[in-house]
Amino acid sequence: MADGKGAALTRRGLLVGIGAAGGAGAMYAAMGALGLAPTGQDKEFTPPRAGDFTLRGKASASVVILGAGVAGLTAAYELGKAGYDCTLLEARPKAGGRNLTLRGGDRVTELNGPPQEVTFGEGVYFNAGPGRIAPWMVTLDYCRELGIPIETFVNSNAAAYVHVENRTVRARTARADMYGYVAELLAKVTDSGALNRTLTRDDRERLLEFLRRFGDLGPKHEYEGSPRRGFEKFPAVDGGTPLDAPGTLRQVLAAGTGRAITNDFGYEQATPMFQPVGGMDAIVTRLQEAVGTDRIKTGAKVTKITTMDDGVEVAHTGGVLKADYCIAALPPHVLAKIPHNLGAQVTSALATPVPVAAGKIGLEYGIRWWEREDRIYGGVTETDLDITHIWYPSHDYHAERGLLVGYYNTGPEAELYGALTPEDRRRRALTQGKKIHGEKYRQNVLGSASIAWHRQEHILGGWVRWPSFDPSFTLLQRPAGRVYFAGDWLTHLIAWQAGAMESARAVVTGLHQRVLRSP
Amino acid sequence: MADGKGAALTRRGLLVGIGAAGGAGAMYAAMGALGLAPTGQDKEFTPPRAGDFTLRGKASASVVILGAGVAGLTAAYELGKAGYDCTLLEARPKAGGRNLTLRGGDRVTELNGPPQEVTFGEGVYFNAGPGRIAPWMVTLDYCRELGIPIETFVNSNAAAYVHVENRTVRARTARADMYGYVAELLAKVTDSGALNRTLTRDDRERLLEFLRRFGDLGPKHEYEGSPRRGFEKFPAVDGGTPLDAPGTLRQVLAAGTGRAITNDFGYEQATPMFQPVGGMDAIVTRLQEAVGTDRIKTGAKVTKITTMDDGVEVAHTGGVLKADYCIAALPPHVLAKIPHNLGAQVTSALATPVPVAAGKIGLEYGIRWWEREDRIYGGVTETDLDITHIWYPSHDYHAERGLLVGYYNTGPEAELYGALTPEDRRRRALTQGKKIHGEKYRQNVLGSASIAWHRQEHILGGWVRWPSFDPSFTLLQRPAGRVYFAGDWLTHLIAWQAGAMESARAVVTGLHQRVLRSP
Repeated sequence: MADGKGAALTRRGLLVGIGAAGGAGAMYAAMGALGLAPTGQDKEFTPPRAGDFTLRGKASASVVILGAGVAGLTAAYELGKAGYDCTLLEARPKAGGRNLTLRGGDRVTELNGPPQEVTFGEGVYFNAGPGRIAPWMVTLDYCRELGIPIETFVNSNAAAYVHVENRTVRARTARADMYGYVAELLAKVTDSGALNRTLTRDDRERLLEFLRRFGDLGPKHEYEGSPRRGFEKFPAVDGGTPLDAPGTLRQVLAAGTGRAITNDFGYEQATPMFQPVGGMDAIVTRLQEAVGTDRIKTGAKVTKITTMDDGVEVAHTGGVLKADYCIAALPPHVLAKIPHNLGAQVTSALATPVPVAAGKIGLEYGIRWWEREDRIYGGVTETDLDITHIWYPSHDYHAERGLLVGYYNTGPEAELYGALTPEDRRRRALTQGKKIHGEKYRQNVLGSASIAWHRQEHILGGWVRWPSFDPSFTLLQRPAGRVYFAGDWLTHLIAWQAGAMESARAVVTGLHQRVLRSP
Repeated sequence: MADGKGAALTRRGLLVGIGAAGGAGAMYAAMGALGLAPTGQDKEFTPPRAGDFTLRGKASASVVILGAGVAGLTAAYELGKAGYDCTLLEARPKAGGRNLTLRGGDRVTELNGPPQEVTFGEGVYFNAGPGRIAPWMVTLDYCRELGIPIETFVNSNAAAYVHVENRTVRARTARADMYGYVAELLAKVTDSGALNRTLTRDDRERLLEFLRRFGDLGPKHEYEGSPRRGFEKFPAVDGGTPLDAPGTLRQVLAAGTGRAITNDFGYEQATPMFQPVGGMDAIVTRLQEAVGTDRIKTGAKVTKITTMDDGVEVAHTGGVLKADYCIAALPPHVLAKIPHNLGAQVTSALATPVPVAAGKIGLEYGIRWWEREDRIYGGVTETDLDITHIWYPSHDYHAERGLLVGYYNTGPEAELYGALTPEDRRRRALTQGKKIHGEKYRQNVLGSASIAWHRQEHILGGWVRWPSFDPSFTLLQRPAGRVYFAGDWLTHLIAWQAGAMESARAVVTGLHQRVLRSP
């Protein structure tokens, strides 16, 4: 991708762009692609099979897995295919980790905060953790393998809004105007002859053909609006009622919608995306079933990890567990606080990644006004408010009730909301959403539930950020004695379940090869 | 939208752009928006109610409806709400018109061609007519009202391909490269000072900020590729394996992917779109149930229409029907051949719109290789081949079998395929698709069914094109005596079911007001 000339600058530039569009995961991925980050396993994954042992006349091994989140469950699931004797220790009252779907009857507790009783109606759910899956991600393979029905998740919606600097405009309108003016500018520059030395006549013709199409330009290459912007009343028997004319180029640039309309350009966020039918926790449920719920000890907080020549010993609040190997599939900042004998480098490495605050609120409404009145079926409204996003549901369209994600924010905004009581979070989210949707946003709210991941016991963060490219990352991709580390935080898919799964697969591969090689 | 200066040119330019992106419907809509097309009813539709008569002490009327397609069924459904006595005459063996979903056990007959026996497996269906619904369309309101579950239809997929001039590239790659180079060109022009007289310093900064984001540019504003292009192997534990570097600006322009990557810019095709769960004909089924199947006489070909002072008389192959009013909801070119006493202007107007050929093939595969191997879940591959498009299914993801739309073409390409036998259509479609997907495209094909709408008896076209803005259009929006005309062809939503429904609503409104006014 990058050649010699000016590669360093180019690389940095790329990372800036990617970080903005796709978050930390995308940035690390790009670092890998550019050769700036360590490379790991990149062959196809081969699941361990029972035959791997029986054909060799060997016995499998016992493995204690710390954490029954997606990484831990995936590791247990894959190892189980070859008959490994796995035990999962989970400090929380139930498995799943950040893959958490809330429904009526659930109770949410938080550090330093009052508990919330979830009152959502029948069939209404709130994916408080991950909510969408890109089609290239291994997560979909697990959905297929585990028989979890999936459906389309609408991540980009031309009818959703962009709310920036107190102005609300439909995404389609913002896009048409920005593309229109960009096309006009470049087309007029081309017409003026300024590109004659850069481009041949044929190339200029091709460029202009594209720009006319891209910006819906007139014959003099002006942008003066386009039906792509949408309508006050869409065409029917008549031709419809157009919106007000677009602002000037200057107004459109000043509107600052550029970030919002490029949000789905990254490979992690591109259309289409997917979700399990009925809630993301179907993945947890099916993994648990496949692993065997009797193998998962909940309420078991790990207090000490000891690697030895012939095995591992894990002390936890319910006793001490011995096994041949250990997979530590906890968040690094949680793991960092557990005494161990894995060495000072591991201690230091575990303390390197920084937890990122993340929060979400689910708002249940008695009527799907966003479908009926706004004609928004799924998708995301992008804002520069502290709620950051509003997600509209991509399922059960036309149902009576429905649930919006009223904020999904990270960093300082997540800390701000996290510090509020659940009631105040809701009040603030409704006040912000009203700026976009008007008074109806505060009406007909049947229930709500919010989560501050950085205040979730034993999790303490939405995900982690590596402050810089760091050898800790590769150090922890390798086992320390008989202890392996797993989690999205050790991959280039941070904050994605696919990262947890890929990490688990890599650890399972390494562990299994070691067991097969061992005498 | 358009101001005085150069408005005529601007309008024409807009129409060229719109026609290319959105088809005839979009062009007419734009004509309406620009004041070039006649305006019709644009108020909210109020369905007739039983109380409209009982409260006035009046009787409702009898209406004979010609054609039980979506327009005819919608008219009967709405009139039925007020107790009108409707009878539908349908020449074909079943209702629905172009809203046709084929399943195993169905039989497709064509003019001048052998019949096809459809052999698709359980649960597999092929929407041979309309296949997608935009969220602003009235079609969704009918889905809600009639209790028809809907799901997302993926119309745009970054993972689908663009196949132009014998090169196949993922849509995400084509888009990243084109946007990257466009951004680079305009950013460098801006850097050179060439826009200093057009834009203020602030505006230039804002423009550059957008362009960096839009094109994923480096700090010197070069485009040298981007993770947005996709990967040979996507990031996981490692950073992934990048694709080959992008071509030069010149190569990217020459690749000709511009049309394909702007295909979803129009308001008719924008993401997201929707479909009824289980097949588009759910709309027909539910409308029929609501209307009462006993009111629909199939196999009844209309042979004469006579309007009189006190009613209408419609002769058909099964007899003669008298009613107070008639709604002629047949294609205009079919209607044009039926003797009537509605006057020469009507005859001439009905002969004005030109039928457009349209064809589709459904290819059923024993394995969803597009999901497993290509990671394409729904969406459309755009091509410059005579198949024009390939549609991947947006439903039953991960099922064993699946059905692709192997071509959906119009005009000369549809005529070409329509002239072939079903077996030759299939062979040709497979040969073309192989150019994109390789040999697997011709393997595991379990069954196929194709349709040439211009060869469907009593329909004779995919839709119509009005050769120019024409007073015939408005003439036929008004009744001729006691005969009303309805269909998508009388709206600005040609080729969409929403057009048929909107037209039916307009006619129902006019007819009902007349009945209420009549002594």
